[in-house]
Amino acid sequence: MQLGMIGLGKMGANMAARLAHAGIGVVGFDHSAAARTALAAQPGAAAVDSLQALVAALPAPRAIWLMLPAGAPTESTIAALLPLLTRGDLLIDGANAYYRDSMNHAQLLAQGGFEFVDAGVSGGVWGRDNGYAMMVGGSAAAIARIRPVLEALAPAADRGWVHCGPVGSGHYAKMIHNGIEYGMMQAYAEGFALLQAKSEFQLDVAKIAESWRHGSVVRSWLLDLTAEFMADGKSLDDIAPVVADSGEGRWTAIEGIELGIPTPVMSLALMQRFDSQGKADYQARLLARMRQAFGGHAVSAAAPSSGS
Amino acid sequence: MQLGMIGLGKMGANMAARLAHAGIGVVGFDHSAAARTALAAQPGAAAVDSLQALVAALPAPRAIWLMLPAGAPTESTIAALLPLLTRGDLLIDGANAYYRDSMNHAQLLAQGGFEFVDAGVSGGVWGRDNGYAMMVGGSAAAIARIRPVLEALAPAADRGWVHCGPVGSGHYAKMIHNGIEYGMMQAYAEGFALLQAKSEFQLDVAKIAESWRHGSVVRSWLLDLTAEFMADGKSLDDIAPVVADSGEGRWTAIEGIELGIPTPVMSLALMQRFDSQGKADYQARLLARMRQAFGGHAVSAAAPSSGS
Repeated sequence: MQLGMIGLGKMGANMAARLAHAGIGVVGFDHSAAARTALAAQPGAAAVDSLQALVAALPAPRAIWLMLPAGAPTESTIAALLPLLTRGDLLIDGANAYYRDSMNHAQLLAQGGFEFVDAGVSGGVWGRDNGYAMMVGGSAAAIARIRPVLEALAPAADRGWVHCGPVGSGHYAKMIHNGIEYGMMQAYAEGFALLQAKSEFQLDVAKIAESWRHGSVVRSWLLDLTAEFMADGKSLDDIAPVVADSGEGRWTAIEGIELGIPTPVMSLALMQRFDSQGKADYQARLLARMRQAFGGHAVSAAAPSSGS
Repeated sequence: MQLGMIGLGKMGANMAARLAHAGIGVVGFDHSAAARTALAAQPGAAAVDSLQALVAALPAPRAIWLMLPAGAPTESTIAALLPLLTRGDLLIDGANAYYRDSMNHAQLLAQGGFEFVDAGVSGGVWGRDNGYAMMVGGSAAAIARIRPVLEALAPAADRGWVHCGPVGSGHYAKMIHNGIEYGMMQAYAEGFALLQAKSEFQLDVAKIAESWRHGSVVRSWLLDLTAEFMADGKSLDDIAPVVADSGEGRWTAIEGIELGIPTPVMSLALMQRFDSQGKADYQARLLARMRQAFGGHAVSAAAPSSGS
């Protein structure tokens, strides 16, 4: 089995290394020369410096895994690949793409006689050693072709990857996986905040987090990670209280609305991230001004902007 | 080490059995004769049929663990025990009690020269085999006295139990643990609901749940349990869509308000349980009626009550 890997960032590079280690021949491409050099140093892996060279290096019918940011980088790479491919080639998109975009990509590729698999990949930077959880969507034939790749990337050949259904369903399941992740993370964060705020007890939050890892109902991998960084004793004060959001939290909230299924906690966890990004500041200013207007309550002056 | 155990329900009976198995002498009391007989059948355990007999069976200074429902059953048992105890005796309350009640109990007991430890216990029916997570509050001396008990109940002697701080802090930490649990459960439930509702993909929700147990960011013990019961293939249709709540979800929400710390997801998860209990029905009727009033929108007739 040979696989092309386009995109050798944090995820793609580690996945390529895991595949090469498992005996799958990997040919990688990235715009970054450093990323190519790093991959080429792995036994069983090679790196090339163009899409043309990648396609030329792989025997037809090809299997090429895209591990690029969703949106423009993935779109433009698919467009650039199209004229280079030959009938029967298979593209796998491992990005956190919106499932409807993936369904459109599959339709576009089908017109040229190409196959498509959408693969939701979870596991972050730990995946290289622990394996990746993967949710894949596509035809049974397409999944069968890349089965050795999925078995090598997964934590074990028979676990941690799932053929969800037709094209789109892999990214759909991954989107919801991430929506759940938003809600879980927010629940933990709120709970630890109440421990931290209870000054009368002077609780050692790190010690409590560590104890919950064993035997408690809330034990989880996210808690393992949290307890681990809490154990280093470093204050969080030098981390800005700003949480980014990526597409999936938003798409999950939209999906709840489109299906008419209540998803209050996942949606609220997303809203809390917007809030942390300062996007509730206008509302808060307006509320303070309203209180002043009807009750004469004092308002505080804004801190001078660091930009002025 | 000898321990009295009052309350041999699901939790108390399993904890007593785990202790006896670990070589801690347990004397148990429960109002139920069947529960007493079951405990007495365990090697290393004995059962008695009154609080007097329990106190008489234990060498002073005694250590007695209460494993009763919080509130009236715990209150009345403490009141009944008080005249039977001798100076230096120690009571441990393992119920899901409100931490402020526990602080009051400690004060009351201190007046008679008795010690008190509040112990939040997690692990459910699985604890007997896997061990219990425990968060304990009390003086260092009191915790030292019951250390062998905590080490035997925990998943391992050095993990899964934590001395949080002074009296009250054990139940405080357990309360927050459960608040987090509410939020996590709600996040999973919403996510699986979106998988289930996506009819165009005909997703096998059980298979996806199982796959997420390995390598994914949302893997957890709650997910293990969920995947396990989903795997039996039984429909949920014969389970009423009603979720009970116990005190801790409410206390956690109140704590957020009292400390002025936002806990939107944990609080909303609680509100969703109220909703499932039919407590949003009046609001929904009112909203339907308002829409009718301002827009002439149709309202549906309520289904005939099964009680009429």
